[in-house]
Amino acid sequence: MVVILEKNATQQQIEDVIKHLEDYGFQVHTSIGVERTVIGAIGVQPNFDTRKISILDGVAEVYRVTTPYKLASRSFHEENTLIKIKDVEIGGNQVAIIAGPCSIESEEQIFRLAKIVADSGVKILRGGAFKPRTSPYAFQGLGEEGLKLMRDAADEYNLLMITEVMQIEHIELIDRYTDIFQLGARNMQNFSLLKELGKTEKPVMLKRGIAATIEEWLMSAEYILSGGNKNVFLCERGIRTFENYTRNTFDLSAIPVVHKKSHLPVVADPSHATGLRDQVPPMARAAVAAGADGIMIEIHDDPDHALSDGPQALLPNTFLKLIDELKLIAHAIGRKL
Amino acid sequence: MVVILEKNATQQQIEDVIKHLEDYGFQVHTSIGVERTVIGAIGVQPNFDTRKISILDGVAEVYRVTTPYKLASRSFHEENTLIKIKDVEIGGNQVAIIAGPCSIESEEQIFRLAKIVADSGVKILRGGAFKPRTSPYAFQGLGEEGLKLMRDAADEYNLLMITEVMQIEHIELIDRYTDIFQLGARNMQNFSLLKELGKTEKPVMLKRGIAATIEEWLMSAEYILSGGNKNVFLCERGIRTFENYTRNTFDLSAIPVVHKKSHLPVVADPSHATGLRDQVPPMARAAVAAGADGIMIEIHDDPDHALSDGPQALLPNTFLKLIDELKLIAHAIGRKL
Amino acid sequence: MVVILEKNATQQQIEDVIKHLEDYGFQVHTSIGVERTVIGAIGVQPNFDTRKISILDGVAEVYRVTTPYKLASRSFHEENTLIKIKDVEIGGNQVAIIAGPCSIESEEQIFRLAKIVADSGVKILRGGAFKPRTSPYAFQGLGEEGLKLMRDAADEYNLLMITEVMQIEHIELIDRYTDIFQLGARNMQNFSLLKELGKTEKPVMLKRGIAATIEEWLMSAEYILSGGNKNVFLCERGIRTFENYTRNTFDLSAIPVVHKKSHLPVVADPSHATGLRDQVPPMARAAVAAGADGIMIEIHDDPDHALSDGPQALLPNTFLKLIDELKLIAHAIGRKL
Amino acid sequence: MVVILEKNATQQQIEDVIKHLEDYGFQVHTSIGVERTVIGAIGVQPNFDTRKISILDGVAEVYRVTTPYKLASRSFHEENTLIKIKDVEIGGNQVAIIAGPCSIESEEQIFRLAKIVADSGVKILRGGAFKPRTSPYAFQGLGEEGLKLMRDAADEYNLLMITEVMQIEHIELIDRYTDIFQLGARNMQNFSLLKELGKTEKPVMLKRGIAATIEEWLMSAEYILSGGNKNVFLCERGIRTFENYTRNTFDLSAIPVVHKKSHLPVVADPSHATGLRDQVPPMARAAVAAGADGIMIEIHDDPDHALSDGPQALLPNTFLKLIDELKLIAHAIGRKL
Repeated sequence: MVVILEKNATQQQIEDVIKHLEDYGFQVHTSIGVERTVIGAIGVQPNFDTRKISILDGVAEVYRVTTPYKLASRSFHEENTLIKIKDVEIGGNQVAIIAGPCSIESEEQIFRLAKIVADSGVKILRGGAFKPRTSPYAFQGLGEEGLKLMRDAADEYNLLMITEVMQIEHIELIDRYTDIFQLGARNMQNFSLLKELGKTEKPVMLKRGIAATIEEWLMSAEYILSGGNKNVFLCERGIRTFENYTRNTFDLSAIPVVHKKSHLPVVADPSHATGLRDQVPPMARAAVAAGADGIMIEIHDDPDHALSDGPQALLPNTFLKLIDELKLIAHAIGRKL
Repeated sequence: MVVILEKNATQQQIEDVIKHLEDYGFQVHTSIGVERTVIGAIGVQPNFDTRKISILDGVAEVYRVTTPYKLASRSFHEENTLIKIKDVEIGGNQVAIIAGPCSIESEEQIFRLAKIVADSGVKILRGGAFKPRTSPYAFQGLGEEGLKLMRDAADEYNLLMITEVMQIEHIELIDRYTDIFQLGARNMQNFSLLKELGKTEKPVMLKRGIAATIEEWLMSAEYILSGGNKNVFLCERGIRTFENYTRNTFDLSAIPVVHKKSHLPVVADPSHATGLRDQVPPMARAAVAAGADGIMIEIHDDPDHALSDGPQALLPNTFLKLIDELKLIAHAIGRKL
Repeated sequence: MVVILEKNATQQQIEDVIKHLEDYGFQVHTSIGVERTVIGAIGVQPNFDTRKISILDGVAEVYRVTTPYKLASRSFHEENTLIKIKDVEIGGNQVAIIAGPCSIESEEQIFRLAKIVADSGVKILRGGAFKPRTSPYAFQGLGEEGLKLMRDAADEYNLLMITEVMQIEHIELIDRYTDIFQLGARNMQNFSLLKELGKTEKPVMLKRGIAATIEEWLMSAEYILSGGNKNVFLCERGIRTFENYTRNTFDLSAIPVVHKKSHLPVVADPSHATGLRDQVPPMARAAVAAGADGIMIEIHDDPDHALSDGPQALLPNTFLKLIDELKLIAHAIGRKL
Repeated sequence: MVVILEKNATQQQIEDVIKHLEDYGFQVHTSIGVERTVIGAIGVQPNFDTRKISILDGVAEVYRVTTPYKLASRSFHEENTLIKIKDVEIGGNQVAIIAGPCSIESEEQIFRLAKIVADSGVKILRGGAFKPRTSPYAFQGLGEEGLKLMRDAADEYNLLMITEVMQIEHIELIDRYTDIFQLGARNMQNFSLLKELGKTEKPVMLKRGIAATIEEWLMSAEYILSGGNKNVFLCERGIRTFENYTRNTFDLSAIPVVHKKSHLPVVADPSHATGLRDQVPPMARAAVAAGADGIMIEIHDDPDHALSDGPQALLPNTFLKLIDELKLIAHAIGRKL
């Protein structure tokens, strides 16, 4: 931690700041410049609340030197994390595609869509059985029945499955069916749920909260990692800004930033980021070009009657065309798909 | 719902839109203007996903006519909701004050602070036993032991208590001790938890999420109300913006807006909104002047050693001086405190 | 400037950073901690682009120690700036009120409104002759004719006048009529205009840009101050956030922050911040309670036919009632109005 | 315009709303639904301030049916605008690249960089002679001397040039040298300057303001178009959000949105959007993949000593490698570069 004193800080104030730092257990190094005194403080836990010092009289600014996360940081673990699930890898040279409907709606629907996914060469099927909905009156998902249908469809077409977990009580249930847990944007700081997922062994895809900084997102990953589960990958899905033509603003810069700060893979979800079908293909292409380790896309063969998020689902033909474009773009940057 | 067609929409497109609306169960009224066709669609559930129509060819804009919440709206319930807990009222002419430490830290601490709160005339004691912390390495609260200590302190000084619930499994436990449940900002869209709180009977204070619109906040209140619990009040605690001198941006305009759109009381939390002790008194005064039905303030008599959020806690003397100022401001706008 | 090296920075990288700093003219002090090397760099202009260092290999973080503004800072000028114009003071114990229409529309209109302002005891009349409008098709103001009418109305009722300047070519013209220049939010970073206003002598009210940080706002004040004009006061008028029920989000915390960081007075404009008449009185009250040195309020006696911003103008009766409430609130915090 | 009445609006209120609408010159069509009355109002200027109606008693919501811009809209002009300058086209199938330094610093510098640009096959040279700087103490550009040097360098290497205009007084001067005017983000709503640029004939590149909605951006284009200059293209360069790891958040979704709403070409500036050199290549690739009609990139062969924005400038080798990648990506989506 580095503490910058006010230009006109008194000797008494400087001593008081040093005393506080020492009482909190820091080793203190003081440099007296022409205009300002700067204090370096070394040796305490990374998550020390720096406001404890910034509130003291005579203090101008306080900076934390270390990142508040450790296990998630690139400096702790230099090599990229590579997540392997059967014959699928996330975080390697290949760009992983995840596709499927927003919600599992019926046996016919999930089997039809699983077939489309498998025929396109994609290996991971998405679908929600427990749905987080803004309105209490909206379709809330099929629950366990949905999980069963999705597992059967995935097995039939030799696909992996990923589905969302919304509460601790459902972890055990969902664990019996899924290959990958999805933690949704609204639960990114549901710390109780993060801790419990840290005790599981299956990969967890952690979506970024709509108002989460990259640092907070990595702190939430730290919750899972510190519980013992090392198979975490991130998913950028748009942040909330003043621009409201699109549902969210897709923060693609987060992809190279995460790759710099962390060793965890990061995928992108253009369907939720934009919320409108015609925006999905250009933004999926942009995400691959920006270096995403994977893309998650919602599809539906009858979006008019989808029980949730139909307007952002791609039709099968558009989806197949997009997969072809993504292959060319992956190739252009030296990756494959 | 009102659907505006593109200026150059074809007859075919207009008919297709009408067919979709009728298939979704709407009654349709079409007005053909000089430049545009406008379609009114009446008769479906308030949470219909309007993007289902906006995605259709030839559609320029779609507007929902009704609010997506009902029980929380002023048009459903014209009178202000008045929450009564023993001899305390929230939502009436009196401005309710809630004060106490961020976390319950020890028996001595909570008793000392409860005494300060009671001596100031304030009637509701706050304190956290289960703490949502960004870092997995930070103090997570005393758990049930904290609840017991806080209940004893509240009883000793004849105070009501409010404490935060973070997960469904804790509701029953916390219900044995608390008078009011607090639902924190990070859990504002933890829909599973909202539903369970709808089944309880005690008042719930619902904090606004840092990136929640006022509409989404009222939708979350709707989850609790629709479960049967009518004792909900709201708490504005700052939203996330580009300005980062303060921890959050305190959105005081939300207070008159909530009073216009809803019948639910709304209190304000300047401690979390600003994050810095010296900002709390001016912002507490501003919140009362803006019409808040209550103010929640964090206090500590030894903030340097507080286990969480010490830098935003008021010292007892500043707190007492602030209470006097708030009385004058409440009086200036025809309320009391 | 303080430079934090990466945990695993090589000796080579550290030396390269030091060489860069020395080449830029800094005096360098290096502290080698257990985990990290920290370099203090002293002695260059406050606006050094710190990214020049943060881009170097091995660098984790770079912090500027000094504020990038100087003349506007409290540490440069400890006493509050008090602006005196005839018998009116801005920045002292008295809360200054500025009131009038959005635009000057006609001789009758500005005289009628000037009379209402004067009768209420308010001493500064606002009104726009050159209007910044989002649409090229909207009313753009009466120009010089408006300035003349407003000057006559102000003189008739013994009021000071404030009006907006939008371009350099108009400074001389407006200077012949006005007592105070207003620089609008959209021009807060029109640096050419700021420089020219620095050469004038009359007070300048500098409105905050809708996306300006407090630091950028003070940097724009620095442009005027460094030109030689010391009579600058600031005006908070709302920032742009994701919440769009109100036109902008009124950032009242900016008031105590400005008072801490700077010696310049700061007033608040609830009319533009909220954009809706019924929000103005509670937010005006809140601004006085938060410590604003003044309040600017738009009024109109026929808002239905106002040529601009009628919906946010207070009717005369509401305005008079508000002035009475503001007096009580000013009194509650030891000020007068 | 569509006006939705409150559920419990009285007959008196409804009549009052209709009277207001008629007084403003609207033709009124009223539909009385089961729950609500909806009024369609046809026939007034597109920029009518809808708040004039939303403020009336009994009104729930008001929606503008038409866009507030006309000349910039796709519905007014269905074909893409194609801007031709000598043998260069912007807005066609080819992706235009603009490259050069942030500022013109010296004769040697601009000639060296112009050669690098020309050798790479790029045809448009950028460089600033008048610089908008946050600090009054920062390098403000070489002025006319810079324009001359840049024109000579452009001519020597057979390049077009683009440079920024910051104030009306400079238009005539800059017009003598440049091929394209650049209007910077901070001046996007400098309406006086927009109007004057509408009277010129040369193409104008209009950068998006950091807090401008897409609608406001198109409204600013409307100012130029309505002045008679049809050669306008847009430039997305990042918006301000809560995320501050990157200088701005690059809103790539704006590209397909602009293409849908408007006929104007839109280019992207990853250098200013990210502010850090290592973010520029992935974001440039993403912008081409998203469909940008051009990319503007800052380069420098000695960025350590650049007088402005060195940290975001690409080194020549990285730039050449990037051009090759962009060609492949353009090809992948059926365009060329």
